[in-house]
This record gives sequence, structure tokens and C-alpha cells, in this order.
Amino acid sequence: MNGAQAIILSAKQCGIEVCFANPGTTEIPLVAAFDDPGGIRPVLCLYEGVCTGAADGYARMLDKPAMVLLHLGPGLANGLSNLHNARRAHSPLVVVVGEHSTWHRPLDPPLAMDIESIASSTSGWQRTCISSSNLGSDMVEAVSASLKCQVATLIVPYDLQMAPCVEKKISPDESRGRAPDYLKIDEAAEVLRMDNKTALVLGGRTLRREGLLTAARIRNACGCDLLAECFPARMERGSGLPEMTRIPYIPEMAVDLLSHYDALVFAGADEPVAFFGYAGVPGRLLNEKTKRVHLADPRRDATKALVSLADMIGAPAYATKDILAQPSRPAMPAGKLSGQKACSVIAALQPEDVVVVDESITNSILYYPLTAGVPPFTLLTLTGGSLGQGPACAVGAAVACPDRPVIDIQADGAGMYTIQSLWTQVRENLNVTTLIYSNRSYDILKLELARYGVIAPGPNAAKMTDLSGIDWVSLGRSMGVSSAAASTAEELAQGLSKALVEQGPHLIQMNL
Amino acid sequence: MNGAQAIILSAKQCGIEVCFANPGTTEIPLVAAFDDPGGIRPVLCLYEGVCTGAADGYARMLDKPAMVLLHLGPGLANGLSNLHNARRAHSPLVVVVGEHSTWHRPLDPPLAMDIESIASSTSGWQRTCISSSNLGSDMVEAVSASLKCQVATLIVPYDLQMAPCVEKKISPDESRGRAPDYLKIDEAAEVLRMDNKTALVLGGRTLRREGLLTAARIRNACGCDLLAECFPARMERGSGLPEMTRIPYIPEMAVDLLSHYDALVFAGADEPVAFFGYAGVPGRLLNEKTKRVHLADPRRDATKALVSLADMIGAPAYATKDILAQPSRPAMPAGKLSGQKACSVIAALQPEDVVVVDESITNSILYYPLTAGVPPFTLLTLTGGSLGQGPACAVGAAVACPDRPVIDIQADGAGMYTIQSLWTQVRENLNVTTLIYSNRSYDILKLELARYGVIAPGPNAAKMTDLSGIDWVSLGRSMGVSSAAASTAEELAQGLSKALVEQGPHLIQMNL
Repeated sequence: MNGAQAIILSAKQCGIEVCFANPGTTEIPLVAAFDDPGGIRPVLCLYEGVCTGAADGYARMLDKPAMVLLHLGPGLANGLSNLHNARRAHSPLVVVVGEHSTWHRPLDPPLAMDIESIASSTSGWQRTCISSSNLGSDMVEAVSASLKCQVATLIVPYDLQMAPCVEKKISPDESRGRAPDYLKIDEAAEVLRMDNKTALVLGGRTLRREGLLTAARIRNACGCDLLAECFPARMERGSGLPEMTRIPYIPEMAVDLLSHYDALVFAGADEPVAFFGYAGVPGRLLNEKTKRVHLADPRRDATKALVSLADMIGAPAYATKDILAQPSRPAMPAGKLSGQKACSVIAALQPEDVVVVDESITNSILYYPLTAGVPPFTLLTLTGGSLGQGPACAVGAAVACPDRPVIDIQADGAGMYTIQSLWTQVRENLNVTTLIYSNRSYDILKLELARYGVIAPGPNAAKMTDLSGIDWVSLGRSMGVSSAAASTAEELAQGLSKALVEQGPHLIQMNL
Repeated sequence: MNGAQAIILSAKQCGIEVCFANPGTTEIPLVAAFDDPGGIRPVLCLYEGVCTGAADGYARMLDKPAMVLLHLGPGLANGLSNLHNARRAHSPLVVVVGEHSTWHRPLDPPLAMDIESIASSTSGWQRTCISSSNLGSDMVEAVSASLKCQVATLIVPYDLQMAPCVEKKISPDESRGRAPDYLKIDEAAEVLRMDNKTALVLGGRTLRREGLLTAARIRNACGCDLLAECFPARMERGSGLPEMTRIPYIPEMAVDLLSHYDALVFAGADEPVAFFGYAGVPGRLLNEKTKRVHLADPRRDATKALVSLADMIGAPAYATKDILAQPSRPAMPAGKLSGQKACSVIAALQPEDVVVVDESITNSILYYPLTAGVPPFTLLTLTGGSLGQGPACAVGAAVACPDRPVIDIQADGAGMYTIQSLWTQVRENLNVTTLIYSNRSYDILKLELARYGVIAPGPNAAKMTDLSGIDWVSLGRSMGVSSAAASTAEELAQGLSKALVEQGPHLIQMNL
């Protein structure tokens, strides 16, 4: 066995089943090892940002890492911004990057880059391998590190992949849990019992079913409000679950909301800060007087702590019905499509158990409130703010959950960044429906120009926000995606219904 | 005036005319300043790799920097791999990256990344601005640094862009030249005068007309061979210029070629090393016995030194005709298209003064020898090996030279990486013709698998090289590019002729 084979074998033994890959010369031994007995399933992506975004989506759905295989520094660079989103999502990812042969790297060949510096910007753990005989255990350590909800990057020189390697069986360290911190739970219980205006702020894995239902129990007992972090990596949502108010993206709105509380209990969420530092608007969204209790580190699953808290305050075993969202769908709209109507059509039709990836940016504000009572579904959002997450994340979610439909609600401005994702959706016959808000504009930039005081942009600034000229139907078809346009609510409803029953990827250009 | 306005004014005063931009919230003041009197022309790209590749192409054609405007760490990350190519091309580039407000950055907001670490991988010069009153002079220093043939990165916090700034007039330091090193020239002259087998290896700016004609004079006087670096940033080529043998990409072939020489004189080129470190193949392509003389640092224009060398050895003022390529075109082929026939059609039809961007990877070996005697043209190649250079570089070359046609000879495997370039080609009405070698395969990976010993790849490895399923005609049209397919030499000839006379971008899918 050579080093590359040891890496693939270790990955397999650690439970890795899929590799999102865009390999080159220095990863050829790993490519060949994909066909070893017990090898893993490679999924080719035609751009590295698709690989990393897909691995993020996969990890969010399965709470386990996929492997990502990238070519040298340039490949890692191309995948970096979706690794940033994965880092902000606390997703477990194992990124294997090929490096030049150990004896060749000092010659600074054309493709050489400082891979370590690039990797350090998103990796919670990273290692450049120095001996072929350790490659198997290096991989096991990378997987173990990733399970601490972070990106683990293994940089593997070409010659070491080809050198002989003795198999060693090592199990990954899966010790991700920590006992809840009972001092913190006491403190939180005390805060919740007081006659104050309090809220429980959920984030990370507490936004799954168990965490949400536990939060509902606590609300039942104490009357506290339930808030969610602004951009959850994954949130279960719909009828039978408590309605969660997401902390708004607009900092003034967030400050206003949070100012109503005397105390906040954080479970799996960080203290909220503004996305950007605007003049005259605070960066910290909480004022100093607000008492805060942090139940657990956001990089740990805080659900256990939440359950202990519910038990400690004597919450009922099940929340009463009035705390949980009742089944409801928005009425089906009619006529010429608008952002609001498009959201209503989606919320009216989305099936139970659908995975919704939301990279609709300005339109996401409209969609969320419409979905409180729809059949339960999973929502994945843009954690790190780096555009191009949607189409790639949808690939990973669909690979992770082949039996669940995936809808990517996609702003056109953000849609072009990883548009190569459509090709992989076709290649792997994934049940992804991409819904493009075609408003032909970087609307968020228009808002920001107005905030800066530019209400009527000059010709150059206006040119920076104008996205006209993309025919998404033709673009989808160019990669083999069944594609159509919708200009009315009825057309969208018809197209979406069709897309959801047919096998394979679909795209609908929603003309706004 | 605020800091953003000072940056744009300084850029303008330093001669910057164009900004390839993909801005976000933290660059809004700079976007607004584009409309100031004396502002610069912004060119919107729908992906950051297009911005940086375009700026590289622009710099190669004009020997002066364009500005690149990117959004925070994720924007820089997305542009990084084409910055790598620009670094390897020794192109002058000024990259302005927005950063969070100085007081907001410590809060680690969602979009925060370690921009400095990322930038360090490609920047020869970088600075994070700390005072608004210096932004104008910071920009002047960035331009000065870029003129030393490198990427200069200026990281500009949002609040500083908005803060007041007093205009200061500072001129850029354009001292890029250095007097030739006469000791080295003496040494080179001595080597060339000896009765040995010698070659002159040209690179960088010596591959322009003056350098090439000077090299021809030297060959006339000494009988030395003329070699060029493997992947020139820019090379003038065609009838009336000396034929240059490029050092082969395949290391065994390069070693064989170079082994024939007792001595090499390098002018503007680095000593060649293999692209990859293969077992049993040397990384350094020159053997130890070969004498080498380096006329000048490859990051400096070595043309002056070359001229001094020619004069010192008493070369004739003009090379005789037999040293220069005579006008010749390959015969126009007929019938079903192949890689070889496609190259012949292009070489048979390409007009004088065309700029050819060559990212055809495996097919580039076929094209180059056919163009020795075609009407003089400019060739831009993939300096850093990072895929996705072609379509973006073509954007920049066309913006730099609006009166010259641009042809991007494009491998389909590399074509998807910065496919968003087509949109900017349409938006700016650029005379770019993209010729896609549609062989539906990462052919270079098949070669590398065979080299590794995998002649019949297993199903997983085979999946990694199969690119089928892209309809490039539909893809081109989706962004408004006039697009067609060609399956025969005649169809290609007809399509290319049409593309070259019509205004605006064209695309031809060459079915191989």
C-alpha cells in the first residue's frame, strides 16, 4: 500500500463515504486509490468552490465530514471562500490538498504557493505531512479534528502519496461532547426565573428538533422569548416546532429587538455583532446593561445543556400546543410575480422534509416569516456571508440526503459565483431545484449606496449594481439542467410542482 | 474629500484608468468615488477571479497596473488563483481590498477573515491602512510597488474610506530600471564567443519585439540557439521575428533539449524547473555541468542588458533574413475537426496584431509550431499553471487594447473556472473570440494517470477525467455571447472569419 491508499483507507475506516474533488497532477495517486476495494465515492466538481460548498452542505445535514480533494495552493485558494462559510457554520470538513514532492517544493515551481498561509485563514487544524508512513494516522487525526466542528486541512506532498506505507488501524477520537456546565445552567435558571424580560438565543445544533422542542418547554415554564442567531447553519422549522425570531441582519433592527430584554441566555450561539461597522451604529448589538449567560461554547452541541436547564426549572415534559406553530400555509398568490409572491408560492408548495438552501439575500427577509407553519423542513443559510454558497451547498445536501428534495432559493447576484454546481447536480442526478430571483441587480449594493447617502447613483456606481443580461434558462440547459422561466405566480407554481416530482435537477428563472 | 476619494484621485494621478471590480458593502465609498470628476472606469465582473485575471491581462499588454477592487477576505480569496498567475507573470497589479471598520474588526463579524495571510501568498507588497489621512499616499505607494512588476495589495478599512482626508500630491516612484550589470554582460559575451554549444534563454519583457530582434542579432554573430521560457507572460511572435524554441513542459523533453548545451545565457528568465516532481525525473532541468550566466533579474526588464551584450560582441545592427521567420501560414485543412486541424485553421486565419490568449493546455503543443511565420501577433500564456486564466485574461487584454482583436484558445477543462468572464465581455462589448476545445475530458489528468501507471482507469478515476455534458453554445448565449459550434475545419474557418469581423464577443465550440 502507498501513502495515498493509506489516506483513502483511513478515511473509509473513519466513516467518510464521499469525496468532493477537483484533482490535478499532484493528487493522481489519491485519484487512483478511489478505485481500491473499500474506496470512497468521488464527486467531481468543475470548480473548487463547488467542492468546499458541497462538503459544507453535506456536513450540515449529516454531522459528519466529507473529504474534499484540491489541487495545490491554487485549488485551495479557489475553495477558500466556501471554507470560510463552513468555518462560520462550525461544519466538520476534511480538506486534503496535494503539495509538490518534498524534494521539488524548494525549487519554487510555477504552481507553488504558500499553502499553509492560505489554509490558516479557515482551518481549525492543519498539518503538512512529512512522512509517508504516517499518512494513514495523519488522516485519522484530521478526521478527529474535524469532528470538533471545524475545518481540518491535510497538505500531502506528491512523493509521499506514492511512497510505501504500512497500514495502521487507528480509530478517530470522537470525543466531541463535554458534560454540560452546571454552574452556567444554575445561572441561566436563575435568570429565567426572575420577573424580567428574558430571551433564549439558540444557535448551532440547538436549532435541531430536540433543541427547539426543549426551548419550547422552557418558554412554557418561564414565558421567555425564543430567538435564533441571524444566519443558522441548519435550522429545523415548520409546524409542530416553536416559532423562532431570527435576530435581524439590519443592525438598527437588531439593536431595537434586543433592547427589550433585561437578560439573554445563549445556547450554541455567539453574542450577536453587526455584519458591518457603520458610522453611528454599534458593532455589538447588545447594550452593556443586558445580562447574558452563555450555556455552552457555540462550537459544542449545547442541546444537552438546554435539556438540563429545562429539567432544572421544572419545565413540562412537552410544550403545550400554543407554544408550537400550527399547520398553515400562505394563500397561493396570482398574477405577475414579485419577490413576495415568489416566496408565497414556495412556502405554499414546499413538501414536508424538503431541505431549503437560502441564498436569496434581500428576498430572504420575505420568505422566512411565511414558513412558520409549513410542513417541517430543514433550512440552511449563508453563515459566513461569502457569496456562492447556495448552488454548492445544495449539491452537498442532496448527496447527503438522496431521498429528500432540495430547493436552492438563489439571488441572481450571488448565483454566478459557483454556477458550475449545476453541472455536478446533473452528473450526480441530484434532486435539486434552483429558484433564481432574477431581479437583474445587486440589490444589496443599492441599499448600501443609499445608506451611504447615494440615492441616485452616478453612471459608474449604477454600473456596479446592474446585473442585466443573464438568461438563466439557457445557462441551466447548457449544463443539462431542466430549466424554465416563470413570470407569474401561476407559472412558478406549475414549474415548481413539476420540478418537485421529476427526478434530477431543475432550474426556474423567476422574473421579478 | 474622504479617504475613498483620495484613493481614486491618487490612482488617477498615477495613471490608472480602469478598475476591475466586484465590490460589496465595505467598498461602497470607493464605488461612489468612481463618479467623482477625474474618476476611473469601473468594469464589473461577476466573480473575483475574473477581476484579477483581467487585471493581469491588462498589465501584460500595457505594462501598467489596473486597479482591482475586491470585497473583504472572501473576495480576495476568490481572486487569489489568478493573482498567483499574475505573480508568476511579474505583472504590475494594484489590488484594493475593503476591510471591516477599524473598530468593528475586533468583534470578528461573520465576514471577517485573516486578509493579511491570504494576501501574503501572492503580494510582493501589501499594507493595511491605519489612517484616513494617508490613504492617498498609501495608494501612490501601492502603485509604485506594483511597477516593480509585482502584485501590490492595499487593505482599506471601511471607516477610513469615509473619514475626511486632505489631498496630497505625490508622484509614484517609477524607478523600475536598473543599469545593466556589465560584469555579467562581459561574462555572457565570453561564453557566447567560445566555440561551444550555447543558447540564449529569453523570458519576461525580452520576449517583446526589441528583445527578440536583439537576440536575433546575437544569434547572427555567435550562432547560439534561441530558447524561450516555457510559459511566457507575453511574447511577440510571427514573421520577421526570430523563431523561439520554448522549453518543453514535459520534463524529460526539456532535460533532453537542454542537455545539448555547454552554456546558457539567461535574459529575463529564471533557470527552468519541472512543473511537478516526478519520481526518477530531475526537478532542476539543467545538469550541473552546464555553465549559466544570468544577465539580469527576471523581475527587471533585461532588454537593455541584451542590447549591451549584442553591441559588445559586435553583432550586426540588424539580423540577416535567414535568422528571422519568413511569412508562412499552414494550409487550410478540411473535413472533420481534430485538435491539429483546429490549430491549423486558427494559424491560417489569425489576423496581424491579434492578441492570442492560450489556455488550451494539451492542445497548445500543437498550436505554437504553426505560428512561427504568421503575421506578427501577441501570445499570452498560463504563467502560473492555475486554471481559469484564459477567459479573464482575454477580458483584460481587450480592455487594454480595444483596437486589437483577442482570441482566447481555451481548453474545456479549464474553461469553467472563470466562465463568468463571458458576461463582462458582453457588458463591455469586447472583441474577444473564445474558441473552446470541446474534447469533454481533463486530458491532462489522463496523461498523468498513465504516467502513474494507470492505463485503464477504474470507474471512479475515470469519472474524474470525464467532462461530458457542457453545451458551450448554450452557455455562451446565456450571457449574450454570439455562439456557434464547429465540427469540421470548414465550419471553424467560417465561424472564426465571421467572429473576427463582427463587433463584440463570440464563442465557437470546437467539437473534437
